[in-house]
Amino acid sequence: MAIKTSLRPGGRSARVQDSVHQATRALLAELGRDAISLPLIASRAGVTPSTLYRRWGDLSSLLADVSLARMHPDADPVDTGSLRGDLLTWSEQYFDEINSVPGRAMLRDAVASDCTNRCLTILLGQLQTILERAASRGEATPSAEHLVDRVIAPGVFRILFGEGAPGEHEVNAWMDQALG
Amino acid sequence: MAIKTSLRPGGRSARVQDSVHQATRALLAELGRDAISLPLIASRAGVTPSTLYRRWGDLSSLLADVSLARMHPDADPVDTGSLRGDLLTWSEQYFDEINSVPGRAMLRDAVASDCTNRCLTILLGQLQTILERAASRGEATPSAEHLVDRVIAPGVFRILFGEGAPGEHEVNAWMDQALG
Repeated sequence: MAIKTSLRPGGRSARVQDSVHQATRALLAELGRDAISLPLIASRAGVTPSTLYRRWGDLSSLLADVSLARMHPDADPVDTGSLRGDLLTWSEQYFDEINSVPGRAMLRDAVASDCTNRCLTILLGQLQTILERAASRGEATPSAEHLVDRVIAPGVFRILFGEGAPGEHEVNAWMDQALG
Repeated sequence: MAIKTSLRPGGRSARVQDSVHQATRALLAELGRDAISLPLIASRAGVTPSTLYRRWGDLSSLLADVSLARMHPDADPVDTGSLRGDLLTWSEQYFDEINSVPGRAMLRDAVASDCTNRCLTILLGQLQTILERAASRGEATPSAEHLVDRVIAPGVFRILFGEGAPGEHEVNAWMDQALG
């Protein structure tokens, strides 16, 4: 189920989304994810269940949307003065975040709901910011997709299927190869 | 929820598992995954619901177990005469399989149930077979983990979060880098 993201800020649609997100976060905290349902969230948010079915399709998609909103970075990546430094600082924080309990829940919801393009869009946007800054310093830059293949994908794979976040030594080696 | 895998073939435990897997596959085909539940599966399999809760913990874990059993390779990787050939043939088939509808369902169930170590064990076992064959031919071999980081992880990441299975050209380039 694709999630519609183009909301006019402050419009009716954005107000419904705020109210539904808030109700979902409150019910998750009070009852846990196994006990909540779309009708329960609708009732808490003061909207009809059909509003939720129309907009989010199913519970997984709504949960993924709420998790993604929570994980959405609220600042530009830190500027350390070099591409390598920016990428290492940013990726360490990224792996930490998605290896956390809410981060893993976000990945699980994203995979379950097939709304995974939005994750990738946020990720590529962050990398693009770092790459444009490096280009403006005159540094040579790989593509964001290359960084995803060489650094982000192996880290996320370990978090999903292996022993958790990759160590600093490994991320350094992956980065050297990606930038070399 | 960890899934217990050490079953004595033909024992009581293995017979319960066969019956439960068969009931789950039949109900998935008849009703679809949104309409099935542990009590329904228990009733079809002729066991008590508490047997299922005790052994699998929840529906996601049981579905992941059934998907994994279906995806379990029933033959050794093809022997093409060289490490590079074996890996390319095997990885093409692997990406095809997990990019299919049942393959994606398996990934989704595996991520949802946290029973992800079993996926990785099957995967590493297949790679190990290929690597041991190459070593016996006298070829230099990387570790299975290195192949996961450099080739498998970026492919699975694309299938989960991007535009589907990677193209032949990309897999070739990843393989060159992993073996180079």
